[in-house]
Amino acid sequence: MKAWFEYNWQVRDEWFEVWDQLPAEELVKERTGGIGSILKTFFHIVDVELSWVRAIEGLEDWEPRFEDYASLDAVRRLSDDCRRQIRGILSTASDLKLRSVVQVSWHEEPLVYEEVLRHVTAHEIHHIGQLSVWAKELNVKRVSANFIDRGLGQSLLQEKHGPQLRGEGRP
Amino acid sequence: MKAWFEYNWQVRDEWFEVWDQLPAEELVKERTGGIGSILKTFFHIVDVELSWVRAIEGLEDWEPRFEDYASLDAVRRLSDDCRRQIRGILSTASDLKLRSVVQVSWHEEPLVYEEVLRHVTAHEIHHIGQLSVWAKELNVKRVSANFIDRGLGQSLLQEKHGPQLRGEGRP
Repeated sequence: MKAWFEYNWQVRDEWFEVWDQLPAEELVKERTGGIGSILKTFFHIVDVELSWVRAIEGLEDWEPRFEDYASLDAVRRLSDDCRRQIRGILSTASDLKLRSVVQVSWHEEPLVYEEVLRHVTAHEIHHIGQLSVWAKELNVKRVSANFIDRGLGQSLLQEKHGPQLRGEGRP
Repeated sequence: MKAWFEYNWQVRDEWFEVWDQLPAEELVKERTGGIGSILKTFFHIVDVELSWVRAIEGLEDWEPRFEDYASLDAVRRLSDDCRRQIRGILSTASDLKLRSVVQVSWHEEPLVYEEVLRHVTAHEIHHIGQLSVWAKELNVKRVSANFIDRGLGQSLLQEKHGPQLRGEGRP
């Protein structure tokens, strides 16, 4: 699962660079679809990611308010802080943990730990897709959504089987 | 990986139901972002998915033309046909195969088999995010992008460890 998070974080950081070129008023302008504005969408992605990961770890709920992070720099710092927490948590994600059943306060049914990690992964990719439409409307560069060409193939091999393992050629 | 494909296919089918309610001219209307129209985006998702999966299987390239599938029903039938092929292929996706290095005619660098499956997964979620903006603009129901609440937690457990295994409760 770590490579999925690395993918989303790479893409997110590249979007931060794109938004950095835009006037602040474009970032807070309400738009059709998604969470309403570019900045709110980014805040929402970060908030949702950490909230779910903390919840399935059994950690105290975390409820940041958008009003406290209402600039691109603030959301980026928040994103960096959250990432450090999540990297730490994911570094302990054994197969046994990924298969464990978890209960989250805001969701009635039990869930599988990895199911939640995938939920968070899909959540960000989905919102980034929405943002890409807004970027096209704004005529700004769009970040590639490609999973390939990000060095993640090697991460996948290392994640599963340690850094020594190399992929086998296909027959 | 199978649960990711099942996720995308569930979401895709739910969107087919939504688009079925729209007049045909809305489906072919050119829009900002993505592949240009709702129908072209759906065709593109199906085309890209099967092309990559066939390529990493070493199967002959497959190049359907949009002109041959220019209605919602035709794209849905294409989607169903492709899904059957891909289900068959994924059913043979052992860990060894997922880690294998593959070469695809349209991509210079070698890739890891699972890296490509993830690329295809993210590709569809990204485009569905774009479609959700258009759906909001059209004031039609938007399909949930949630990975949870789709029965995929159990699929994950079965995928990895056979149908008998149950998740363990967290401490």
